[in-house]
Amino acid sequence: MKQVVFASAMLLGAAICSAQGPGDFTPAETNVWGAEYPRLDATGRVEIRIKAPDAAKARVNFWSGPKVDLQKQADGTWTVVTPPLVPGLHYYTVVVDGAEFADPGSQAFFGGGRHASAVEVPEPGADYYGIKDVPHGQVREVWYASKPTGGWRHALVYLPPGYDTSTRTRYPVLYLQHGGGEDETGWIRQGRANFILDNLIAAGKAKPTIVVMAYGYARRAGAPAASGPSTAAADPEARRRVMQEMASTFQADMTEALIPFVDATFRTIADREHRAMAGLSMGGFQTFQITLNRLDLFSHIGGFSGAGGLNGRALDPKVDFNGVFADPKAFAKKVRLLWLGIGTAEPERMREGIRSLHKALTDAGVDHVYYESPGTDHEWQTWRRDLHDFVPRLFH
Amino acid sequence: MKQVVFASAMLLGAAICSAQGPGDFTPAETNVWGAEYPRLDATGRVEIRIKAPDAAKARVNFWSGPKVDLQKQADGTWTVVTPPLVPGLHYYTVVVDGAEFADPGSQAFFGGGRHASAVEVPEPGADYYGIKDVPHGQVREVWYASKPTGGWRHALVYLPPGYDTSTRTRYPVLYLQHGGGEDETGWIRQGRANFILDNLIAAGKAKPTIVVMAYGYARRAGAPAASGPSTAAADPEARRRVMQEMASTFQADMTEALIPFVDATFRTIADREHRAMAGLSMGGFQTFQITLNRLDLFSHIGGFSGAGGLNGRALDPKVDFNGVFADPKAFAKKVRLLWLGIGTAEPERMREGIRSLHKALTDAGVDHVYYESPGTDHEWQTWRRDLHDFVPRLFH
Repeated sequence: MKQVVFASAMLLGAAICSAQGPGDFTPAETNVWGAEYPRLDATGRVEIRIKAPDAAKARVNFWSGPKVDLQKQADGTWTVVTPPLVPGLHYYTVVVDGAEFADPGSQAFFGGGRHASAVEVPEPGADYYGIKDVPHGQVREVWYASKPTGGWRHALVYLPPGYDTSTRTRYPVLYLQHGGGEDETGWIRQGRANFILDNLIAAGKAKPTIVVMAYGYARRAGAPAASGPSTAAADPEARRRVMQEMASTFQADMTEALIPFVDATFRTIADREHRAMAGLSMGGFQTFQITLNRLDLFSHIGGFSGAGGLNGRALDPKVDFNGVFADPKAFAKKVRLLWLGIGTAEPERMREGIRSLHKALTDAGVDHVYYESPGTDHEWQTWRRDLHDFVPRLFH
Repeated sequence: MKQVVFASAMLLGAAICSAQGPGDFTPAETNVWGAEYPRLDATGRVEIRIKAPDAAKARVNFWSGPKVDLQKQADGTWTVVTPPLVPGLHYYTVVVDGAEFADPGSQAFFGGGRHASAVEVPEPGADYYGIKDVPHGQVREVWYASKPTGGWRHALVYLPPGYDTSTRTRYPVLYLQHGGGEDETGWIRQGRANFILDNLIAAGKAKPTIVVMAYGYARRAGAPAASGPSTAAADPEARRRVMQEMASTFQADMTEALIPFVDATFRTIADREHRAMAGLSMGGFQTFQITLNRLDLFSHIGGFSGAGGLNGRALDPKVDFNGVFADPKAFAKKVRLLWLGIGTAEPERMREGIRSLHKALTDAGVDHVYYESPGTDHEWQTWRRDLHDFVPRLFH
């Protein structure tokens, strides 16, 4: 997406869709410039084409979608048309004779601990995450020194429109975390968080807010190099242990290095009332761990398709999270927003986790927002909608 | 490079090298976190390992280096150790049964019109392009509206340390372009231009300067979609035509959209005396086309392994580039710096192009700087050195 034709990319997508019939395929907007494949039709079917003249077998693997064999063509390419995919950004890889790779026709999106491919299926009429002719914030790359991890760490920071010119204005901050196997670029590249914020702010629906997107994997200074993102995908119990240890290290990094850096570097309102945290999937788990441990630092909390980290058991509001939910009135005074979301097409295990948390909080009388994204899976369309619902509720 | 251990990555590389003997392999610093391969030893040999259990053949293709077959192992992986590679960042792809892909163990670097893999071979003792404990500038992502191309375009902008706090200071600007098949991210991801500038500025060797990195491919508004980066790799004549048309459109984009946007958005010194342009390979060609057409806008010019665009013939200083070289004294008054560079290990055709331009300029009495990077090819180590030599000469 190095160049986008005028009119929002989303509106354009919608326009193509209405002009297109089924079977009229056009290149996906997530392609590298000039790549004809992958391409899609108005029904959301995706045609994949891979050059693999000497291969015996080729498959496409949509991580939350079809896994289908490609058919060899006379010219040495392999092709397939998938069943219709729902709107949103769909990660995929291709598998050629057992080797799993990214499709060179697609932009690279960091997911699953690697640079994966993805195809964007436009949602007709949904322009809230497209670039529009409104004032644009800027995303900055920063490097900050982190003693807890013993290294320089990279983060992205969205600064709202007007930040450079309103030089006496200070802003609230949302810390916004990616999911497992992703990195700090996910919310911009995949999620288009910058355009979602630009559009909400331009419409007067959200307060101008700084959004900090950090790298959610962290290893204690001096710890062995074993536990990286790729090990996190192992068995559930190992995964939970790795995530717990990472959440602890990431909490130290965030509270001792990142937040002080952000407050020293940008014109923030540096108090708990003006600091929020949210995250998707693993990032939601980290958000609950960190914010509920440090309510002295945070007042707004969001869990997008991931929150409690209770490993399948029900929340005990008297005990869990140091008992912060034991006194709902005291909690409501401290936490201005507690927000949970899930896509209705997510795997049962994930839906059950969020729904049971929602129920336990409701039963305990803990005020919170619960949002279901209709028809979307454990994918970025769910999390774009989550962010779009979450941000307008912040900092009132 | 989401997290870098303290001490510059380069120094670390050097430290590993001195501790390592040949045959002690460690993961490349360009790997995704947790990936054990590719890995390299102290002599610059690279070990590649790809999982491809059902493949009949696998090769690694270093674009400016060895192209070697991998050997199948009992566990379904394929491996090879290359001959020693010189220091620098080396693009590569892997070819499995005829399908050419990026290595999932490597970070993705946009080159060759796709997200390619690369391995960084540290240069012992060279720390000028590593992150150090000095004040860091910030790289910003901006989207600007471009009437010439009829779209929103994405650019990266490096703002020097202190930009946010010295709110009355205005800065000179360097427009810095990537090469053919690359994009606006190249100078940061591959070139580490931000660290080069940070270190030069901290050492007092360069003036604090804004660096703008734009996407060098541009298509006129309404033009057919045919000519993208991927078509530019076709036969030399077609390539020259595509590049010429793109340079013309990119010139319009740059002079009518990008420069006005940058001058309106950032605290620039918005005159020709404080505006430079440089580029590598195709970006050098574009730099010469644009700056020599518009000396009303630029006063400092750099061509890194690409400059004249004269298609193999000798420069005629009386005629070429509207005759700007015809009067060397007048030219020297207008152009404060004309800089040419080439790696001594680049292909003969490329060396010949720059050397003959150097000779023609010398013969014509046109003052300029000519730099040869010892032992480096048409690769990023040449261009890092070029930038490191070029920037201190700007804006005196």
